Order: sequence, then C-alpha cells, then structure tokens
Amino acid sequence: MADVSAKPETVRKALAAGTIILGEKAFGMLQDGTLPKGDPLAMAEIAGVMAAKQTPALIPLCHPISLSRAAVYCVPNADTQAVDVYCLAEITERTGVEMEALTGLQIALLTIWDLVKPVNAALEITSTRLLFKSGGKQGMWRHPELDSKVLPPSLLDRIQDSLEESGS
Amino acid sequence: MADVSAKPETVRKALAAGTIILGEKAFGMLQDGTLPKGDPLAMAEIAGVMAAKQTPALIPLCHPISLSRAAVYCVPNADTQAVDVYCLAEITERTGVEMEALTGLQIALLTIWDLVKPVNAALEITSTRLLFKSGGKQGMWRHPELDSKVLPPSLLDRIQDSLEESGS
Amino acid sequence: MADVSAKPETVRKALAAGTIILGEKAFGMLQDGTLPKGDPLAMAEIAGVMAAKQTPALIPLCHPISLSRAAVYCVPNADTQAVDVYCLAEITERTGVEMEALTGLQIALLTIWDLVKPVNAALEITSTRLLFKSGGKQGMWRHPELDSKVLPPSLLDRIQDSLEESGS
Amino acid sequence: MADVSAKPETVRKALAAGTIILGEKAFGMLQDGTLPKGDPLAMAEIAGVMAAKQTPALIPLCHPISLSRAAVYCVPNADTQAVDVYCLAEITERTGVEMEALTGLQIALLTIWDLVKPVNAALEITSTRLLFKSGGKQGMWRHPELDSKVLPPSLLDRIQDSLEESGS
Amino acid sequence: MADVSAKPETVRKALAAGTIILGEKAFGMLQDGTLPKGDPLAMAEIAGVMAAKQTPALIPLCHPISLSRAAVYCVPNADTQAVDVYCLAEITERTGVEMEALTGLQIALLTIWDLVKPVNAALEITSTRLLFKSGGKQGMWRHPELDSKVLPPSLLDRIQDSLEESGS
Amino acid sequence: MADVSAKPETVRKALAAGTIILGEKAFGMLQDGTLPKGDPLAMAEIAGVMAAKQTPALIPLCHPISLSRAAVYCVPNADTQAVDVYCLAEITERTGVEMEALTGLQIALLTIWDLVKPVNAALEITSTRLLFKSGGKQGMWRHPELDSKVLPPSLLDRIQDSLEESGS
Repeated sequence: MADVSAKPETVRKALAAGTIILGEKAFGMLQDGTLPKGDPLAMAEIAGVMAAKQTPALIPLCHPISLSRAAVYCVPNADTQAVDVYCLAEITERTGVEMEALTGLQIALLTIWDLVKPVNAALEITSTRLLFKSGGKQGMWRHPELDSKVLPPSLLDRIQDSLEESGS
Repeated sequence: MADVSAKPETVRKALAAGTIILGEKAFGMLQDGTLPKGDPLAMAEIAGVMAAKQTPALIPLCHPISLSRAAVYCVPNADTQAVDVYCLAEITERTGVEMEALTGLQIALLTIWDLVKPVNAALEITSTRLLFKSGGKQGMWRHPELDSKVLPPSLLDRIQDSLEESGS
Repeated sequence: MADVSAKPETVRKALAAGTIILGEKAFGMLQDGTLPKGDPLAMAEIAGVMAAKQTPALIPLCHPISLSRAAVYCVPNADTQAVDVYCLAEITERTGVEMEALTGLQIALLTIWDLVKPVNAALEITSTRLLFKSGGKQGMWRHPELDSKVLPPSLLDRIQDSLEESGS
Repeated sequence: MADVSAKPETVRKALAAGTIILGEKAFGMLQDGTLPKGDPLAMAEIAGVMAAKQTPALIPLCHPISLSRAAVYCVPNADTQAVDVYCLAEITERTGVEMEALTGLQIALLTIWDLVKPVNAALEITSTRLLFKSGGKQGMWRHPELDSKVLPPSLLDRIQDSLEESGS
Repeated sequence: MADVSAKPETVRKALAAGTIILGEKAFGMLQDGTLPKGDPLAMAEIAGVMAAKQTPALIPLCHPISLSRAAVYCVPNADTQAVDVYCLAEITERTGVEMEALTGLQIALLTIWDLVKPVNAALEITSTRLLFKSGGKQGMWRHPELDSKVLPPSLLDRIQDSLEESGS
Repeated sequence: MADVSAKPETVRKALAAGTIILGEKAFGMLQDGTLPKGDPLAMAEIAGVMAAKQTPALIPLCHPISLSRAAVYCVPNADTQAVDVYCLAEITERTGVEMEALTGLQIALLTIWDLVKPVNAALEITSTRLLFKSGGKQGMWRHPELDSKVLPPSLLDRIQDSLEESGS
C-alpha cells in the first residue's frame, strides 16, 4: 500500500455504475416478482453495502478506511431487459474511495446474478465504470458519459451538490 | 439459502470470463512494466483466488463450500488494449460453483483496476459471463459464445476433459 | 475444538427463537413502514443468514462447517409490540448446528435493533432459546415450550418432517 | 449506511447488558470449574471483544469504526443460576457505538452457551438491553433500570466519569 | 490452488511448535501473574484456535477445509525464560493440515507478544517447525528433532496413537 | 482492549523481520524458479500486506486501525539458504503498529512455507523480531541488533528518515 499519511483528510465521493442483462424471461419474472429465490434487488442493495465495507480485505493494496456512507441503487430498465446498478461511496480520509464504490457495485451485480441464474445461465454484466469521483488533490473527475446518464432521482439528490461544485 | 442436503456430491466446474479495457496509454505501460504500483496481473491472479474463497461471505445466499481448485488467468489483448480475465473454480459438493468463479473473476478485474487507475480513471469492465459449468443434475452447460473464444493454453489444458465430455 | 472426526455424518437441524420488544411507537412505525432507515425485517433476514455462515469465525470452539441451509423468519406480534425471530439451520456433518442457528438469530435481532434504535433506545431482546435440534447421536431434542409456540406457516412447512419423526 | 461525515467527532461510550440462565446443574459446574469444555467466562470475554470489532461486518448498516476500547465482564449470579454479561464499547468518532457493545455482548453470551450446552440444552438468554450511551449530539442517555443495577466494581470504575457527567 | 478432488479423504494430523523468548523480567511477571494486560497463555490458546480456522483466508493457496480439531498448548520454560507453543490440527479431507497448525501457532505466539510487549520490546519468536504430519498419500512424517522434544502430557495423550502408528 | 482515546494521533512506524530457512535443495529451486507451485516471494509480499490489514481480527486485544502503509520485502540469502523477510507498517493513530508489522511478517513467512513445503517438510522460521518502532509517547525504539543488519535498499529508502530522527 502506498503511504498516504501526508495527504490531507477531505470528503471524497465516488459513484460507480454497471449493468446486468437478464434477458426477456428473467426480466419479466423480476418485474412480476416471480423469481424463485426472492427479490434480487433488495438483497443486492444490502449485499453491495456490506461488500463495500470489505473492500480492503479483498483488493490487496486498498487501505483500510472508515466509510462514512455507502449506498446501492438498482434500477430495472425494460428497454434493455437489464438492471442498472449504482454504488455511491463516501469517506472523510486521506485516500480515494473508487474501489469501495466499485466493489460494492460488483457484489451487488453478482447477488442479482445468483438469484436470477436458476432462470437464465447466460447472464452478462457489462459497462462497469466509475461515473465520478470528487475530493482529494485532483478534485472532481467526471466520466465523459456521465451527462448522458439518467440517474435515479434518489441518487441524484445525494450527489447533486458534488455535481454542482464541478460546474455542471 | 436453499436446502441442498438431498443433492448428490459430484465434481462441478465453472469457468467465468470478463474483460477490462485499459486504453492505449495504460495498456502500453502494462506491456512495458512501467505501471507505478507494480504488476497488476500477478496480483490480480492471487487476489482472485483469495476472493473466490470468500464468496459465501459476500453473496448472501451462497452456501459455504470447500473449493477444491480456483485459478485465475490474465491474458493481455493488444488488439483491444484490454486484459481478458478467466476464473476457473472446482468443487466436489452438492451445490454449484458459478458464483465462486464469478466472484474470483470480478475481484481479479477490480485488482487490475486498482493498479491501473492512477494512469486512467475511465476504465471499463465489460462482458462478464459464465462460459461453462459442469457437474450436478443438469450436467454440462456451455455459453453459446464459448466456441468462438480463444482460451489461454494453460487454461485449456485444465478444462479439456470437461469440454470433451460435453461432446464438443 | 473437540475432535469430531469419529462421529458419523447425519442430517442435523436446529431451530432457535428470540424476541425483540419494540414498544408501541416503534412497533406502529414498523407496521406502517415509516421507520427512518427502511424495512428492518427484510434486512434482518439477510443479515441473519450471512451471520449464521460466520459462526465458526465468531464462537471460538465452533467447528467450521458447510451449512446446507439457513433461513431467518421475522414475525411481528401486535399483542406484545414485538417481533418474534426464528432461525433454522441445517447441515450434513459430524457436528451439531445449534450455534449457527443461535448466531443467525442474534444478529438478525440486532439488525432490527439497529434500524429501530433511532425511534426507541430502550429496546429489549428476550427469550432467546433453542426450540429443537435433530440428528446426531442423541436424535431429536425438543424444548418443553415448543408445543405451545405458534410457528409461522412457512417455517412449519420446513420442519414438519423433523417434528413428525420425533413423534409429536 | 447514513451519511455521518458532517457529525463532529466526540468520545462516545455504550454499555450493553444481558443474562444467560444456566439452571442449577450447569451453574454448579460453572462454579466448581467442572464444565467439560473449560472455563466459559474467560473465553466469553475474549470472544466478545473480538466480535465487537466485527460489528460492521455483521450488521448491514453499521459504519466501519475504530473502536478505542471494548471490554466484556461476566458476573455469575447464584440467586438466579445465571451469568450477567456486560459489554462496554468506546470510540472517538462521528457515529454511535451501541451496536458494537450489543454485538460483543451477544457473542459473549453465545460463547457461554456453546461451552455449557453439553450439560443443558434448554438455556435461555434474556434481558439484553442498552444500559447507557454517552457522547454525540444527544449526550447521555440512561436506561430507566440502570440505577437499580448492581454493576461489577471493575466496570463501575471505567464508567464512573460518564455516569457523573449525567448528574447521577 | 492445486486440484485435490482426486485425492482420497483420510484423517490427517499436523503438529507445529515454536518458541517465544520473553527474557527474565517478563518471564517472571508471566509466572507471577503480574503482566499488565492479563494472562497471555489463556488468550493465546483461544486466539490460536480461532486463527487456525482462518488459514484459508490468510494463506493464498490454502484450500478451505473443515478442521475437525484444533488445539493450542502453551508451556512456560523457566530454563530458557521462554514459552514453548504447540498447535495440533486435524481434518478428514483431501488435503494436508500443516498450514492450519502453523497459522494457529504463529498467531498464538503473536498474541503472547502483544500482551508481553509493554514489558519487553525485544521479544523473539524462534524455532517454528512442523514436528509431524500424518495421513494422506505419504503417511507419517516426523521431524528429526521430534524424539528429543519433551511434549506436554495433555498433548501427548492426543497424538500418542499417531506416533505409535509411525513405529516410534 | 485498553482505552486509547486520550492518546494523541502521531505517525507511528514499525519494522519487523524474520527468516525462513529453506535448505539447499529448496533454496536452489527458489533461485532457479523451479518450485512447483510458483514464485513464493511475490505471493508472500501480497499475502503479508493483506494479513497486516487483518491484524485486529486475529490478535484479540489489537485495536482496529487504519494502516496508512504496509509493505513486505523478501530477500533471499544464499549464505544461509534462507529468505529474510521484512514487514514495515505505518499509521497515523493513537496506538502502536508493531502487531501489524509482525502479523504481516508471519503470514508472509508462512506463505513461503506453503509454496516450498512440497520440496522440504523440515522448514524452520527463526529470529522473528521487531527491529524498530517510532512515534507515540516513547518515540524511537531500536532493537540492539538493528545496526548490524544489512537492510534491502528499497526498504532503507523508506525508513531512512525515521532512523535519522533517532540520531543513528
């Protein structure tokens, strides 16, 4: 792990997003609430938050940090028969929080996979990206595609101030 | 967790694959060995194996199982400036091993991300899929795209017998 | 840890139960779905299952085992303004599964506590007991009060065969 | 997890208490030191401290925090043939420490259960409560029944200053 | 991790031993029970057992296994002002158990270190060795120095049968 | 765990060192890169860093801390047919970091053991010591034998400033 002791403590946020493609049958069952192992989205949101806290135990060079917030949002998308998942992570520390957002995201996506796989083995997780990170020496960084994303309103409320700081 | 006590113990294998797109600059530094935090591929292979063992602690409904093998293979692809990652998992138990292969895969991909992100924040993980699973009641299942994949030889050696059983 | 290698592998089940007393105000908010941090029962059921899997990491002399089933049931009780929680655990191994059922139960109860505590700090967890255990050398053991318990139907379905074996 | 980044860091303490009823035979063996698996109280005190540190890994919405103190006290009570267990937790952070005290307490109680269960399967854990918490926006909160509790002297020494601050 | 699915399940044992040199002052305080943080040996025996269970989470290529027994023995040695520590591990599986015995041993030794370090910072852990392993394809293996070791009687009782099998 | 809330936060470093004796054959295979399970040193360096982060989960009375740096260095020594391993840990907190350095060290040494044991079962880990610790109330402490140690240059670069502060 790199030495971070000389960096200042600032509020840092990171938002990661990714998509799991369910296919027509499984997406229909998700919408109808008829998947055999229960509601994948509620479970994915909890598993993602819990996994974000385990990031330093999973990613070898990640520093142990005290996450001040982690939240996962699952948004079914009927057009693509997929679920878009977002993970927002926040700390007040000397190091970034991207990996926590990404780890929470990937485990949330895999939790959906686990509950949907009895219906469709040919699932696919795609487009895992960091949408933005703020705080630290470099300040706000935005993924070029962030502006064209339609974020869920409950998530937008939480990141609005960060986005405004960045002049968008 | 579903009750699995009545299922027979059989050898079960699963192979998951996914890709992280590094972009031109970061891919060049990976090839030249000049990434600032060391060799991501060696570290990803270890982190992936260790994460596969943590699957039941991460995915809520996964059964605790005694993995008999887990291995991660990282294959740089100059055409796509990406790294293709594979995770093979194997058990002799009453339950499947897909989630172990997928969890090992995703943490391996994120470990690469962590070591490459100082050079490129706009990384992308894409095409995470299960390529095949064998064993259990349903026997061999192959992803439609498995045949068109060029698998790394050291991996092929290990799965050849499973593929042959399935008649391909 | 005691040596268990000479014991035969049998199917073993254990059912633990306990109650968290919420009080009038918090119980009303639980029923109305207006608790500020979300639905405690869904979260408790997931956290309990995940904790049951961590039992050998928490209880010093518990053997590491491969749980074949764990499930948590939360039943609000308007008469007592409380939630009755049950945890059923099952294995096919050489050692008992009571501690897994009890650990899943206690963490489920604490998860409810965590989500209800903004409304009432004077919560109380009471009556944590083992209701029955089956399998192993001693066969079925029933708590004297099991018969007077009104168990949730979805739980009863799962344990009916064990209860019948025991002649009740 | 809720956002806690705007809260001030203050010293926060929490004291949780609960009781495990052993019954006459098991309590006698505890007092005589003849329980077959060793001394449950020494083991419970260690297991409780270790579990308090695992709280954020067990309770989904608990923040990862840096406990500055955790201690477990086990007090046999011959009148009730029970063991009263206390867990004191302390941090200097932006979030409360009740769940750490309660988690340490419950795992300590379960550790006693595990060592006593060969003698009595019909154990019962009862009266798990938060006795007080201090620090944070709301300052000292005391359970109505704290005053009538006879706390162990070594514990009283540690919490005396907190109790005095609260005017009792 | 290597593939072990073709190996037969046999009872396998391993015994590891090592020594921590305390020095005159600290050893005296250990004997008198006056070390400031409590009894290191009782705590080391518990921490060692718990760590043996965590071996597959710590050593990258260790298989997850279901330990059927783990025990730690701490034997103060006045001649050397040291504590000799032993860890015995046992499984009925397809893979060896040396690393579990060694991991339990090293964490037990470090737990003693942690409790003694306020008195002596210049501690030393030395002579960590595997004394024997039994079971598996190769049968009994004995360290050349095993015969000259004076093992604690409670440990000897537990390994006598293994030693006799090996013809000693 | 002792109460540390009144201690000031300072930068604290600790360096631990130990040696694993491989013997002639295994040392030769390490140097030639012909060990059957891959390169032990790269794997040991990663496993050691990951284990340092798990210290509070392994050593009962260690406080949970936010390591700001952990690094493991493995140095083969042809004269002794051994590998000298060093673990440097650093935090900015209220408590020391010796146990993190020692835990990272011991797990790194055991990881080498795990990869070398197919070639030599009679391995030995010896001379585990704390070489120095800095920061905190007591400032710099140096092991008497630190001066006669030939430290690896990449490690020396990182600790030079600490050594100079101590007047050496």
